[in-house]
Amino acid sequence: MIGIGAGDPEHVTVQAIRALNHVEVLFVVSKGPEKKDLVRLRREICDRYIERPDYRIVEIPDAARDRRPRDYRAEVDAWRVRRAALWEPAILEELRDGGCGGFLVWGDPSLYDGTLSVLEQIRVAGNVELDYEVVPGISSVQALAAKHRIALNRIGGAIQITTGRRLAEGFPEEADDVVVMLDGGCTFREVALSGIDIYWGAYVGTDDELLLAGELSEVSDEIERAREEVRRRKGWIMDTYLLRRHERG
Amino acid sequence: MIGIGAGDPEHVTVQAIRALNHVEVLFVVSKGPEKKDLVRLRREICDRYIERPDYRIVEIPDAARDRRPRDYRAEVDAWRVRRAALWEPAILEELRDGGCGGFLVWGDPSLYDGTLSVLEQIRVAGNVELDYEVVPGISSVQALAAKHRIALNRIGGAIQITTGRRLAEGFPEEADDVVVMLDGGCTFREVALSGIDIYWGAYVGTDDELLLAGELSEVSDEIERAREEVRRRKGWIMDTYLLRRHERG
Repeated sequence: MIGIGAGDPEHVTVQAIRALNHVEVLFVVSKGPEKKDLVRLRREICDRYIERPDYRIVEIPDAARDRRPRDYRAEVDAWRVRRAALWEPAILEELRDGGCGGFLVWGDPSLYDGTLSVLEQIRVAGNVELDYEVVPGISSVQALAAKHRIALNRIGGAIQITTGRRLAEGFPEEADDVVVMLDGGCTFREVALSGIDIYWGAYVGTDDELLLAGELSEVSDEIERAREEVRRRKGWIMDTYLLRRHERG
Repeated sequence: MIGIGAGDPEHVTVQAIRALNHVEVLFVVSKGPEKKDLVRLRREICDRYIERPDYRIVEIPDAARDRRPRDYRAEVDAWRVRRAALWEPAILEELRDGGCGGFLVWGDPSLYDGTLSVLEQIRVAGNVELDYEVVPGISSVQALAAKHRIALNRIGGAIQITTGRRLAEGFPEEADDVVVMLDGGCTFREVALSGIDIYWGAYVGTDDELLLAGELSEVSDEIERAREEVRRRKGWIMDTYLLRRHERG
């Protein structure tokens, strides 16, 4: 499982390049409308770093998913089972005995990505004799912080990394620095508190990169407009942000 | 500011390699007993990736620091001022007008590292006309997760990244997955709750790497022993861990 960074081909690590050149088959999971841009970026990474001429790219169709389930966790669990059912035969079919394949993961495999748990499920099921290693990658959170030239934490402080869904339930009490991922909308608008700065970024590290920052009450309209405009134009969006509560006391 | 990863020279990104080859001077901040090992690792990274023959390494002495202050934040603030006072003349002296220097940062510059804020302080002070970019790096947290082959979050869950100091005040309520950094001791021993798994690692990514995992109550003695033994032998330790609360309900 190879983390390839947040979009900038230069995020790729030496370890990932070595892994890319070790595998015979690269499994890539086809996704929705973002496909075209990400396929282009992925191809750029492969063309640039893979020197062995004989590798193959195998596309695996992704399983269908209910985006507005009543029970989010149960739906994601079931979705992973459906994904494993599609991936397992692809692995069996495309890899020879003792062969080595790679799964490319945008960002870092340890952060809000299901690839690891799907592979683990296949391993545990035992129909494929499977072992795997994980190669960490630069996450969009790190790319965001680097571009804004900020640390995620303040002195001695805690950082919460959470989802749009959870943020909608309220701003965390136990951390003054909150990173929000998987936000399908603009949940920061629902944060009623004043005294919060936002550091927002979309497509960070790519040519389409957008960065905005400021006091939340002052820039949230602008972020929402920019986000909507670019999402419409490109057909998909990938954004992340840090909410930073002003010093208390 | 160049993040160079958690210790494995292969964590270095293509972006970092480009930056390493762009700078004329590499500023490195000398630290305490860890010096020997880290200097060796750093030299390995420079030798391996820097192709320009004319770069210089300049060591900056680090400022003294009270490790057991009454007011932690005030002391770190003051320490940063002392660091800026040592770094600023080094930059003025070693860099020509229009020159470019690099600061190497272990892990990722956005995560519990003060380099960024010291440079920003120097920039704001205005005695050096200074601009800088940040190159993200693989953090020890990501390296830890990759080696244990785990995601940091669970489905839809939040992650808290915190310090040993804060963990001593209690296990967070708002996240079931808690990453602990900067723990000078074994603060996980003070977590009274049962039903917690720990994924621990020291020197992750280096030849000295140690990994241990299991139910906290069952492995905490073993981790403490291993940690103490290796800390004594090497004279310093760099460890991180994830505490994972069992599913509730």
